[in-house]
This record gives sequence, structure tokens and C-alpha cells, in this order.
Amino acid sequence: MPIQHWKSILECRAFDELEKLSSKACDLTAEGVLNSSRFERYVCQGPLFDLLYPCQRVDAEVLSALQSLADECGLIEQFVQMRAGAVMNRIEGYPSEERQVLHTACRDFFSDSPASVEATSNAKIELEKLRTFLSQLKDGTICNAEGEAFTSLVQIGIGGSDLGPRAMYEALRAYTEPDREVFFISNVDPDDCAAVLEKVDLTRALILVVSKSGTTLETHTNEKRVRVALKSQGLDPSRHCVAVTGVSSPMDDPDRYLRTFYMYDYIGGRFSSTSMVGAVMLGFALGYDLLLEFLEGAALMDVAAEQRNIRENLPLLLALFGVWNHNFLGMETLAVLPYSQPLHRFPAHLQQCDMESNGKSVQRSAGRVQLKTGPVVWGEPGTNGQHAFYQLLHQGTEYVAVEFIGFRRSQRNVDVEVEGSTSQQKLLANLLAQSVALATGRKDSNPNRNFDGNRVSVILMADRLTPKSMGALLSLYEAKIVYQGFCWNINSFDQEGVQLGKLLSTKFLSVMKQKGTIGTLAGDFLAAAGLK
Amino acid sequence: MPIQHWKSILECRAFDELEKLSSKACDLTAEGVLNSSRFERYVCQGPLFDLLYPCQRVDAEVLSALQSLADECGLIEQFVQMRAGAVMNRIEGYPSEERQVLHTACRDFFSDSPASVEATSNAKIELEKLRTFLSQLKDGTICNAEGEAFTSLVQIGIGGSDLGPRAMYEALRAYTEPDREVFFISNVDPDDCAAVLEKVDLTRALILVVSKSGTTLETHTNEKRVRVALKSQGLDPSRHCVAVTGVSSPMDDPDRYLRTFYMYDYIGGRFSSTSMVGAVMLGFALGYDLLLEFLEGAALMDVAAEQRNIRENLPLLLALFGVWNHNFLGMETLAVLPYSQPLHRFPAHLQQCDMESNGKSVQRSAGRVQLKTGPVVWGEPGTNGQHAFYQLLHQGTEYVAVEFIGFRRSQRNVDVEVEGSTSQQKLLANLLAQSVALATGRKDSNPNRNFDGNRVSVILMADRLTPKSMGALLSLYEAKIVYQGFCWNINSFDQEGVQLGKLLSTKFLSVMKQKGTIGTLAGDFLAAAGLK
Repeated sequence: MPIQHWKSILECRAFDELEKLSSKACDLTAEGVLNSSRFERYVCQGPLFDLLYPCQRVDAEVLSALQSLADECGLIEQFVQMRAGAVMNRIEGYPSEERQVLHTACRDFFSDSPASVEATSNAKIELEKLRTFLSQLKDGTICNAEGEAFTSLVQIGIGGSDLGPRAMYEALRAYTEPDREVFFISNVDPDDCAAVLEKVDLTRALILVVSKSGTTLETHTNEKRVRVALKSQGLDPSRHCVAVTGVSSPMDDPDRYLRTFYMYDYIGGRFSSTSMVGAVMLGFALGYDLLLEFLEGAALMDVAAEQRNIRENLPLLLALFGVWNHNFLGMETLAVLPYSQPLHRFPAHLQQCDMESNGKSVQRSAGRVQLKTGPVVWGEPGTNGQHAFYQLLHQGTEYVAVEFIGFRRSQRNVDVEVEGSTSQQKLLANLLAQSVALATGRKDSNPNRNFDGNRVSVILMADRLTPKSMGALLSLYEAKIVYQGFCWNINSFDQEGVQLGKLLSTKFLSVMKQKGTIGTLAGDFLAAAGLK
Repeated sequence: MPIQHWKSILECRAFDELEKLSSKACDLTAEGVLNSSRFERYVCQGPLFDLLYPCQRVDAEVLSALQSLADECGLIEQFVQMRAGAVMNRIEGYPSEERQVLHTACRDFFSDSPASVEATSNAKIELEKLRTFLSQLKDGTICNAEGEAFTSLVQIGIGGSDLGPRAMYEALRAYTEPDREVFFISNVDPDDCAAVLEKVDLTRALILVVSKSGTTLETHTNEKRVRVALKSQGLDPSRHCVAVTGVSSPMDDPDRYLRTFYMYDYIGGRFSSTSMVGAVMLGFALGYDLLLEFLEGAALMDVAAEQRNIRENLPLLLALFGVWNHNFLGMETLAVLPYSQPLHRFPAHLQQCDMESNGKSVQRSAGRVQLKTGPVVWGEPGTNGQHAFYQLLHQGTEYVAVEFIGFRRSQRNVDVEVEGSTSQQKLLANLLAQSVALATGRKDSNPNRNFDGNRVSVILMADRLTPKSMGALLSLYEAKIVYQGFCWNINSFDQEGVQLGKLLSTKFLSVMKQKGTIGTLAGDFLAAAGLK
């Protein structure tokens, strides 16, 4: 499928229009702006989630210009092409990865006509292997040498093979089967692996090693170390270790792994949570049925992301607000603040998914970008954050765009009424209050108690954090990030920026090996970097 | 003690000088800049830590101007006055907290002449109470109703009563006594408390409730819930609950708590980790002797922070680099990246300590600031981050100031050699490589593989992460943050910016209580905010 020459927002007529509008962008503190009609109109309903955006500095004109921007850039067309298997991971005229981008195919099981038949068929094969594997774990066909069931799973991976799956596991821990627990080892820091090994009973543990290339330094090192630990306890690693890797990678070796699940080069690490990278672990923890619900939630959002009307397309609208705030209103960072403790690692996943995708300076056409691309993304759960960094959000000199995430009901449904309200009510009251407080501010004659307001936020609201809504939230942000990459006309799917550090670290390591010690850092620095 | 009228850096002659210098700030990619002499000279030795700064865009002229800035602003004088008990938490001419700032007094036990005799004497009384309490827990004088020892401690607190202590516990977990474990409940999200209660054996648990005012909404709610859980198991809460609170707060009630430890109004929450807020939990987990080592590390850094020569004052030099990067070179965010998995929650602590202290817009003299104050602070451990957001650090359009933290040796000293090097060597090689790669960049004819370089970082390096070095690191950042507040002439010790959200959330809550449900969010929003 041929790729058209796409343009960035800068080349769109709507860009100039938006630039004009930005100088007189709606002031949320002005009398009457935050009125009831605005609150009722500025809601976008998507699958499982609503996006509430009265506290964005937008009005009908801005929304219309954002729609034009989306149309001129062909954002929907690009998304449709991506899902259908276009080679989107490329830079024109230069060696690049030249790959399709098909993470959406991993969950495209719920329609009769998947967008990419072949990729979805590949994904189905793996999912079916997984279903069998999970039932064999259940019925005892697969067990340890003593005939006991596996009760824990240790996932060894880093980056996309760690952050997304870990965030999903933490989010859905409340749904874990009672006899199942999951641990993660990611860092090459030997203290990471040591701390996990202190906690896990290896005799009952599956070791899930996840690396597309099969050669990731950290993962390879930690796997070796866990294999040594298994052997030292008289256990046979090939009975405990399961691989998730690319076809024909060095890890694709049935002699060394109990089972091997495949991932494909058209699925980037940071977009791989719904592939076997996340699915094996989630299937183990939650069971096959809840895993399917998770995938279904993600699939629903993928379909919704193809709506042409931006006001009915939740991920696209969120993406365009991001562009508006970042490129036109000058906000350099984005805080994602879930009012849900189980989502405590979701911002860390987004940091990778967003910043590794869109922290770029070169257009797909190989020219240098003339616009700011991806912002710094950060965040912690509320209400905790209120007692931490919200001071800066309300009264700092930095203006931060905020995305709140909330749920009408709690996950475990265990609550207590204190002073006439439940904890869940307190949680939601705080979420709403923060959004309004940031927007309206408050005049006070004591300058230190004055709040300028006019600080923007959205609220993503769902009924409850379940496997299905988690899937939808994951895929919502994936689509948002992809759309922003299209806006900036960058390749969101490679990560050339990590190569130089890798190269230099190999050099440093060889100096350290020669010297046997770390010595004076200055000396090592220089010799290794060839700077002396 | 009278407060002088301090000025911000903007009013210093050195400010103009620095502004001139910033336009021709040293280019780290230029031939010969990163030479061996620079690597040897640009090291500041502090207690337990060295600060390596060859990869800052500074030279002799800039350093000299920064020294002038420090002198003109009287930074050292202010720090000395703070430690001696000056009323630094105030805004001139307006109602404000009017308090001393004496967190340093909590660890000023290691010199014959503490800077603030009274505060240190108060702290000593609490520490002595704690020593007795810990030995009674050890010798069985204090035990549960069945005569069994307490094996876990659940700390209920939020903000400063959570983030700092939690970061310290995670960092020092390797030193925990074998029969002791600590849990934390902070969020008002009912799922937070539920998840912890699922894991803890309450019959053997101490419940440490931490709130200076004794009225913090989240803490009060979670305490109630845990008391209900205790009673439902037939346990007597007053035998399990321990309080850390202000004298005469509603929690200062011996009938309801087994013991009460005091905190004082001159210690802000985000600076309270070395007070009883962190010490009771750390003493329980690590034992009294290691707690003392932690405090000693902090005390050593406090003393070092009074050096007048900025090149011999680690916290001050770090603070001034922050000002240089933020106010003169335009970097809006600061990434703190520890190459140490046990420090995984330290950036979250710094987010509070830094952003709540310095996310301000009003000077101590009540005028509006004319400079950017505190940056957005964020970070995750390396090498994990390398596989996440480092793409943006190397090739993004945002320029981020980076503070790396590393240790020559691992904490647990369990390691494995893979391909001729240990994990610890790999970890350090990566840390050094990243710092150099960001600085030097690399020219490539493929624009997508080109690295502009000239991106700044420092490395904080210590021998090993121990209670003592953790104490030093904590206090290093506390002093750094305080120094930056002095530079911007703001009050780093209040948090008026959190009040409006609190106020509005009370209003929202009363609407929710009346309606009994959450209803349409729009309606609630408006009615509660009085906007309809």
C-alpha cells in the first residue's frame, strides 16, 4: 500500500487560523464562561469513557479550526491506513525501519472484517496458543517437577516489555485469581533482581522472558541470573522459562523454553501491551476471559478513533487539545493525573508511549521539524498529588496541561462512610474541584492567596476501572499519541534517539572490563568516549 | 531574630552578567571542550557524594558569576539564619504562617553546638522516646493482645507524611530487619486502603497514623477505616495505633493511641522525613542504629551546605546549576534519574519537596515574581528510563536538565557476570554513557540518526546506597530546594496553592451528599462551584 506525502499542521491553512485564535483564546476566569451550557455541551462520549472539556481554553471557533486541521492533515485517513497495514514506520529517502504499524491488529478480533487480515490472523494464532497454555496450567498438564501448580509469574523485560504490562497488572490487580501473583524484573541494577528473588518461591514460578530481538542487554542479563538461581535450587530452567520474542530470534529455542509466544516487528515495544508482551502475564493473572474483555475494550476504542467528527472521536479530540495547548498556548509539559490508586504506574507507561514516540526532531519527509513535538509527560495519582506538586499547578510560573482520569465507582467496592460521605465520593469531589479550581482561580487581596486561574484540564471519566475500561484507556492513549505524531508529521514508531547511549555504554563497559575497577570516573569517561 | 530584606537574583549585578554569559554559554559539542582537565576540575566533593559537572554548560566565568550571585543574595547567611531558627516562613505585610524552618534541627545531634538549641532538644526528646519504644517492641514489653511481637507497620499519611518516608523505606529495604515489613496507605481512593488491608495481618500490625494537624481528610478517613477493620477482627485499636502529630492536635490523645510522637509546626511536611514522620517507621524497619546513621548522613550534608565557596558546597552548587539552566538557558523541567532501582520513589518525593516549595509566584516581599520559579520535576530509574523517555531527552524539541544519581557498588552485593561484566558495571557504564552522549551528541548524515548534543546533566555519585548516604542525599536536595527558593526570593515553606482545591472539594462533597449520587457531572460541577 503506497504512502502519500503527508504534511504537518504547520502547512495547513487552519494552522494560521489557530494561531490567530490563540492570541484571544477563551479566558476561563471571565464572567459567565464556565456556564451550564458549556458543561453540558463540552462532553465527548467514547466507548466506556467520556471526555469532559469545559476547562479547555477552546470555543466553537477553535473546535471548528481543529476540525479543519484534522481534515487538512488527513488524520483519519492516516489512522485508517495504519490499521490496514501501511508502512508508516519510515523516514523518506533515508535508511529507516520501513515497517508496518499494527498493534491494533492484536485486538481486532471483535469485528467480522479486521482492518489487517494477516496481522490479526497471526495474533489469533498466538492468542489460541495462550488459551491452551492457560488451560494446561489450570488442569495441571503443565506443572513444576513436583507436580505442583505454578502460582507466580516473574516477567523479565524492560521498556515496552515492562512498563505497559506492569501498569496493566497494577491497575487490574483487584481481579487477579486468588492463587496467582506476578513480579517484574527490569533494571540491570543488580539490586532489582535481588529484591525480587528474595520474595519469589522459584519452585512455583514461571519465568516469562520478553524481548523482541532476544538480545536486550538488561533482559538477557537478568534472565541469566534467574536461570542461575533456578539451577542453584535444583530446578530445570527449561521447565520454568517461557519466551515472548520474535520469530527466529536467539530466544526462539524450544530446548530452553517451555513455550514460546511470538511478537512481530510491526508492533513497537511501547505499543505492545495487548500483544503477547502483556497478554501472557495478564492471562496468567486474570484468566483468559478477563484478558478477552481487556482486548475488547481496546478494540472498541480503535474503532471509535476512526470517527471523522472530532467532537465524536475521543482520542483524536484529546490529541488535538494536546496540540492546541502545546503548540499554540505554549504548555511544555503534560500531567496525567489518575484519581485511582490502581493506575499509579499508568503515567510511567505513558511517559514511554508518548515521549519515545513523539520526542522527535525530524519529519517523516526527513526535514527538521519547525514546531515543538512531544511534551514531557509526567504524573502521579490524586488525591496524593494534591499534597505534593499541585502547589505548582495552581500557583507556579509553569503552565501545565492536565489530564485527569476518574471513575464513578471504586474497583473493589469496599468503602467506609466518614463524616457523611464515602471515600469514593471524597475522591470524586476532589477530582472535580481541582479541575474547576485550576480553571476559575480566585481573586484575593493577599497576593499569596490569589489564584490566577485559566489553567486547563480535561477529565476522562468512566464508570469503573475494569479489564474492559483499562483496555479502552490504553488504546485511547495509543491512538492519541499516534494522532499527535501525524499532526507533527514525525515518525512516532522508531527510536533512533536511544542508539548513541547504547553505543557509548558498550565502549565504557569495555574500558571498565580492562581496568577491572571503575577507577576515577573522569579517566573512564574520557578514555571510553575517546575524548582524552 | 530579625529577618533582613532579602533580594532575588534579578536584583543582583551578577544577574546581568549571567544573562550576557548565557548568550555565549559553553558549547559542549565544540572541539576540545570536554577535555580531561575539565573532567578532573569539574568535580565537587561533598559528604558521601561527589557532584560531577563537566556536562554543565558552564566555565570559569559562569562559575565566578554564580559565586557573586550567591554572595550578593546572601545565600549562605540565609541558610545559617534558617538553621538557627529565623522566622523564614512568611510573606511581608500579609497574613502568613510566620514560622521558623527547622527541619535541620531533627538531625543536629552530631555536633556540640547545635544551630538551634531548643528545636534540637525537642527532637532529642522524641528520638529518646522512640529509642525506648523500639526496645520495648524488641524485648516484648509492647506486643499484641496474644503476646506476639509486631511484625508489620502500616503508615497512614499523605503528602509529606507519605512520599518521603515511602521513598526512604524503598531505598533502604535491603537493610530491613528480617521480621519486619512496612506498608503505606495514603490515597482517599478506597481501593488503596482495600489493597493494603488484603495483604496485612492486622493482628501483628502497628498502625502509624501521621498528620501534623490531626485533621487531614485522607488520613483521618483511612484511619477510621483501618480502626473498623481492627475491631471487626476483635482487636483493640488503642493497642495497635501509634500517632505522629502536633502537640494538642485532635490526635494527641493517649486513650486512642499506644504512643504519640510529636512533630512541630516549624517542620514542613515535605521536609519532615528525618522527624518522627519518617523516623518511627525507619526505626521500626531498620532498627535504631541504622536510623541514627541515616540522621548522621543528613546532618553531615547540612553542615557542608554552609560552605561559602560554591565549588565546595554541593547543595548550593547544584541549586545554582538549576537556576542557570532554568532561568538563563530556558530549561523548563528537571529530570532526576537515579541509576538505582531502590531509589524508584525518590523522584516522587522530590516532586513534592521541590514543586510544593518553589512552585510559587509571589516574592517574600509580597511582590509578584518577575522570573520563572520552580521547574517541573520528574524522573524514573535508569536503565529503565533509557527504554522509555530518553528518546525525547536525546532528540526531542524540549531541552531537559538532567540530574543523574549513581553508586559505585550495589546495595545487596549480589551480582552475576554476563559477557565479561557484572550488572553493576553495566549499570554504571550506561549512566556515564548517557551523560556523555547527551553532551557530545553525534553528527550523522541521516538526519534521523543525528544527535545535536549540548544537552546538560550532572552526576551525583556515592559509593553505595546506605542509610547514611540516603540521609545525605535527602538533605542535599532539601538544601538545594531551600537555596533555590532564596534565589527567587520566594517563601518555599508554605503551600497556599493547595487551599482553593480543598475549599471547592468541600463544596462539591456537600452537593454529592445531598443528591446521594454523582448524577451528571456537569450539574454537580456547576451547583457546587456556584457557577450555575
